[in-house]
Amino acid sequence: MLTLYSYWRSSAAYRVRIALGLKGLAYRQVPVHLVKDGGQQHAADYKALNPQELVPLLVDGDARIAQSLAILEYLDETHPQPGLLPRDALQRAQVRALSLHIACDIHPLNNLRVLQYLSGPLAVADEAKTAWIRHWVETGLQAVEEGVSSWSGPLSLGERPGYFEACLIPQLYNARRFDCDLSGCPRLLAIAARCELLEAFQQAAPEVQPDAQ
Amino acid sequence: MLTLYSYWRSSAAYRVRIALGLKGLAYRQVPVHLVKDGGQQHAADYKALNPQELVPLLVDGDARIAQSLAILEYLDETHPQPGLLPRDALQRAQVRALSLHIACDIHPLNNLRVLQYLSGPLAVADEAKTAWIRHWVETGLQAVEEGVSSWSGPLSLGERPGYFEACLIPQLYNARRFDCDLSGCPRLLAIAARCELLEAFQQAAPEVQPDAQ
Repeated sequence: MLTLYSYWRSSAAYRVRIALGLKGLAYRQVPVHLVKDGGQQHAADYKALNPQELVPLLVDGDARIAQSLAILEYLDETHPQPGLLPRDALQRAQVRALSLHIACDIHPLNNLRVLQYLSGPLAVADEAKTAWIRHWVETGLQAVEEGVSSWSGPLSLGERPGYFEACLIPQLYNARRFDCDLSGCPRLLAIAARCELLEAFQQAAPEVQPDAQ
Repeated sequence: MLTLYSYWRSSAAYRVRIALGLKGLAYRQVPVHLVKDGGQQHAADYKALNPQELVPLLVDGDARIAQSLAILEYLDETHPQPGLLPRDALQRAQVRALSLHIACDIHPLNNLRVLQYLSGPLAVADEAKTAWIRHWVETGLQAVEEGVSSWSGPLSLGERPGYFEACLIPQLYNARRFDCDLSGCPRLLAIAARCELLEAFQQAAPEVQPDAQ
């Protein structure tokens, strides 16, 4: 049985829950509260499991794997069907490039620890912090919107979602949470509307997780 | 012939130069100056090639691939020898997880556009900006240091460097540039010392690029 250390509202953990659902893999979830107790991800017992002090962490037997995209690649290599990535090397690269733009250039600037540093040591006011979030989310998603314009099908695997949608949907969830302007992203919203009909996405949603508040 | 749109001091472009060197692939470089002219990555002709408005961008025939790690995966799939990743799925995951920790959780917080936003709209003073850089670099590299402690060989592929070292060496270059404390990272410094002897790393170094200043 796979174990996922997760937090209901973590965008990165949400990606992995989607991927596990798309592959139909059973797993148990261990919640790690990112705020309570000064952040349970910094507790000694969790740090011993994951020195990065972040969620998610996937435990598969004796193996512990950090970083959501490393987990997605691992799941796709160890449980190839249904695949999360196209077969063609160039198409795989295009899917990874858009997913990495979300995972490297949008999400990390707006995750909890960074927002805490802005409010804390840098004493950034709430209004300026919201502008910061919206700047990176809106600029980044606009580039993703342009990136999907050349796709031949409605989703990254034609009629099926995969690696890309596992990154996109959590980022759109965050964008809505911070009331970002998504009017320039009709293609992304159309992808989201399709995904939201699917069980793998419904069951991965933050609000239905055991630790949701 | 491969074409790499690059900037000499971009950490992400540096990763790709290392990977191209490790695989012995010939390429031509097109410099994109990230500061001059308000940032040449924002110019209409470059934006048409890469809507993400970032370097690097690899052009292979008609294909254009953004995001350094997507490029590394693409190169490894299209030119498998010598490999950049271990063969075993779990070992691949461990290498990717440490590389992604650098690429998602250290580097993006300290790249040029983010530092420009801190200095500009947020009016963060230079001293506080330097503290921000050191905080993320030092915290992040400490976790990477712990991550490599379980390795059986001196490098990520035993006696050979690959994907991981292509991410680590540019991050250490940045860490030194901002005078970060690396005293807690003896294993990473030992990896760097080995890599620095190799031509692929020497030829990828920022200072020897055609656009170095």
